[in-house]
Amino acid sequence: MEISKDKNILIVGLGLMGGSFAKGMRNQGFHVCGFARRKEPIEFALANGIIDEGYSEVNTDAISRADILVFALYPKAFLEWMDKYQQYLKPGAIITDVTGVKSCIVYDMQAILRDDVEFIAAHPMCGREVYGVENSTEKMFIGANYIVVPTDKNTENGIEICKELGRLLGAGKISVLSPEEHDEMIGFVSQLTHCIAVALMNSSDNHNLVNYTGDSFRDLTRIARINENMWSELFLLNKEALIKQMDTFIDVFKNMRDMVQNDDREGLCDMMRISTERRGWFDNK
Amino acid sequence: MEISKDKNILIVGLGLMGGSFAKGMRNQGFHVCGFARRKEPIEFALANGIIDEGYSEVNTDAISRADILVFALYPKAFLEWMDKYQQYLKPGAIITDVTGVKSCIVYDMQAILRDDVEFIAAHPMCGREVYGVENSTEKMFIGANYIVVPTDKNTENGIEICKELGRLLGAGKISVLSPEEHDEMIGFVSQLTHCIAVALMNSSDNHNLVNYTGDSFRDLTRIARINENMWSELFLLNKEALIKQMDTFIDVFKNMRDMVQNDDREGLCDMMRISTERRGWFDNK
Repeated sequence: MEISKDKNILIVGLGLMGGSFAKGMRNQGFHVCGFARRKEPIEFALANGIIDEGYSEVNTDAISRADILVFALYPKAFLEWMDKYQQYLKPGAIITDVTGVKSCIVYDMQAILRDDVEFIAAHPMCGREVYGVENSTEKMFIGANYIVVPTDKNTENGIEICKELGRLLGAGKISVLSPEEHDEMIGFVSQLTHCIAVALMNSSDNHNLVNYTGDSFRDLTRIARINENMWSELFLLNKEALIKQMDTFIDVFKNMRDMVQNDDREGLCDMMRISTERRGWFDNK
Repeated sequence: MEISKDKNILIVGLGLMGGSFAKGMRNQGFHVCGFARRKEPIEFALANGIIDEGYSEVNTDAISRADILVFALYPKAFLEWMDKYQQYLKPGAIITDVTGVKSCIVYDMQAILRDDVEFIAAHPMCGREVYGVENSTEKMFIGANYIVVPTDKNTENGIEICKELGRLLGAGKISVLSPEEHDEMIGFVSQLTHCIAVALMNSSDNHNLVNYTGDSFRDLTRIARINENMWSELFLLNKEALIKQMDTFIDVFKNMRDMVQNDDREGLCDMMRISTERRGWFDNK
């Protein structure tokens, strides 16, 4: 299968990510159908040109017409959905997702899936601190890192289609990682950072701090505003990799604390020189 | 003394903060003189309208003419400077600063200072990840929190002048804290956050991460690009308050780690609900 504008796209889950994906693909000229559990997101998405058609109940005819399905559900809900409705999939359909954890879902999904369809996992590295289809924007993907996460079961064609979706959405760097590499990486750059921001906000209940903060505190804690249901599920599904990253961070941070305690200025300077150099990598991309 | 446009301002230390302060006051119509140790920042500041006059060697005549002196030096250098040159100060001169730590310097400074001049400490909560007068901008202060840090030795007039400087620079909220309150607060909102960002960047040497990160990681680590000489001095000068904040954070973070380990989803959700609520305070300011 190649991606041409006559392909039907079905987005399952019309939240922030699903809505943004839908809008991005519709802007590219595709026919986009959306499913959601409630009527309101469907009505909003129809009224705002985010989807061409939409249903708040599963419509088996729409499933049968879809060439590409994009899942923007919580990980566990994704598996349950597929188990129940894969019987209606069009032969040759390509299924992808935006889920933030991979090992715990990709193998299970590929194991239960029919042989004549293909699930190729993906993770667009973008998001916002607001939720719901009403905050969705196709701009979210522009320039974002887009990670394609194949296994041995995936075909070259499936991987190419997944990359092409990223390109159509305007993603910046499109990379390929194994599920295990993805989860280790995401444990560090995404989950650990969210843990840090949440723990920091839990370390003081002083409401007056708002009068004294600078941008550094506001930037560092931006992601402390967090969807607890989604992120607690993501953390626990990636438990092993996340715990490893948290333990490494605790060791490094405690070492720094001891340097302060022991007036080890040279040690602190060394750490800061390393952090300055490494942070520079992220500006030069 | 009241602040009127015929007052002479002397900025000692023409780096990012000193240059920005100079530019802000000069834009308000004041005569601004600048001191720096090297010729280049003086030449740059003169050529770019940041100061009216400037010297790369201490000019005792310029000190004698100054009504308001603003110190933008490292904390220890500030004390040494004053010890050496306070003999030239004009009677009635008001001295303020932008230093990031207070208890360790304010009392010492006020103890050595002549009785006919007044040091009123201040801390504008702003900065950038770049250095030097060439990056200075008067916009840095606009809307920033500005903290005035008096002791029993300060007069109402001195405090008012210091607040007025903040207003003239365009600061947002201007607050008053004791040196001890300031240092406890700064240990949390500024120093702890910088420690976290530095420690996080020291927790992985994987250069490929740049291809996988989202905005959350980039925002959280922005301040990992850090002036190691200045910040190591600030950390050690505020050691007691900083260690206390680091220990609190370690406890909270380890507790969160154990929740992940023990599949305590409800505990994680509770922490995230707290962080979401508290982070909301900082958006509504």
